[in-house]
Amino acid sequence: MTIYFITGNKNKFDEAKSILKDVNLKQLNIDLPEIQEIDSRKIIEEKLKEALRRTKNKKEEFIVEDASLSLKCLNGLPGSLIKWFMHTIGNKGLYEISKKYKKYNAEAKDTIGYYKKGKIYFFEGKVKGKIVKARGKNNFGWDPIFLPNGYNKTFAEMPKEEKNKISHRKEVLEKLKRFLKKK
Amino acid sequence: MTIYFITGNKNKFDEAKSILKDVNLKQLNIDLPEIQEIDSRKIIEEKLKEALRRTKNKKEEFIVEDASLSLKCLNGLPGSLIKWFMHTIGNKGLYEISKKYKKYNAEAKDTIGYYKKGKIYFFEGKVKGKIVKARGKNNFGWDPIFLPNGYNKTFAEMPKEEKNKISHRKEVLEKLKRFLKKK
Repeated sequence: MTIYFITGNKNKFDEAKSILKDVNLKQLNIDLPEIQEIDSRKIIEEKLKEALRRTKNKKEEFIVEDASLSLKCLNGLPGSLIKWFMHTIGNKGLYEISKKYKKYNAEAKDTIGYYKKGKIYFFEGKVKGKIVKARGKNNFGWDPIFLPNGYNKTFAEMPKEEKNKISHRKEVLEKLKRFLKKK
Repeated sequence: MTIYFITGNKNKFDEAKSILKDVNLKQLNIDLPEIQEIDSRKIIEEKLKEALRRTKNKKEEFIVEDASLSLKCLNGLPGSLIKWFMHTIGNKGLYEISKKYKKYNAEAKDTIGYYKKGKIYFFEGKVKGKIVKARGKNNFGWDPIFLPNGYNKTFAEMPKEEKNKISHRKEVLEKLKRFLKKK
């Protein structure tokens, strides 16, 4: 069984591969347009539709992933639009806004859509936390400003292994793994 | 000459029709996915590509429009993502953020892409202004919080005729009109 993980992000692919050990997972680096949506499922659906349109072999299985960060003070924004907040106001701006509102609650979410034989199965991983002033290495998106509840280190301050144990991405991949085992 | 204006918004279509009097303008209400972009031109390009994919007659001419609102305090956000800000924090939230930053400058922009024979021609209309506490009728997006520079009424407080004289949409449509006349 080969599953194609559609992503341009080698880190995400490697993490998925390390968890889904029993699966013949291959990276498919095609550039799919992301539609304007806060809802990850709709974004994933559109990406899968587009992937199928470009694929000749309709029997193939695909995975598409979407990550989001929702701020309480912004009533759910940026959600899946996080990329554009990073491009414009960045971690500094996200923290500033939280501070101005004095509301720091946030939720990190990772959604995976698994396509097989005309059906899409969705899985979610969630981590609740707080937005804090940037701390730690600044090499992975908003990791420096996200402090998961119950921890005193931001995602960026944790060693990779520690973060990967508790992250929303880990959770969603484990859910997918259990689903694939049952099949 | 028939030009198809791809929009689900009857008001926008009527306004375009009233300005482009010499054109046989028809509304084409097809639902095209909007990609995640702050840049209107990229959104328009993708919409036109998708429209052409769905059209058999490649000789047809199309117009696609994209409106954006950029806040200085958010370094250009929401831009073309304005719809999602309206859905989540709304006019109230946009004003609140401006107030918290004490920066009220904003720019309203309307971009039109005109497709003919494999080429896209772009036109822009811009109005600079300030974000203010909502005033006036609340029936058209962010009109109540946008005070154009040099005026003491928000777009929502102006009679439709007055707004249509100075709006970014008026400007872009006039530019397109002049272009079509020259051809």
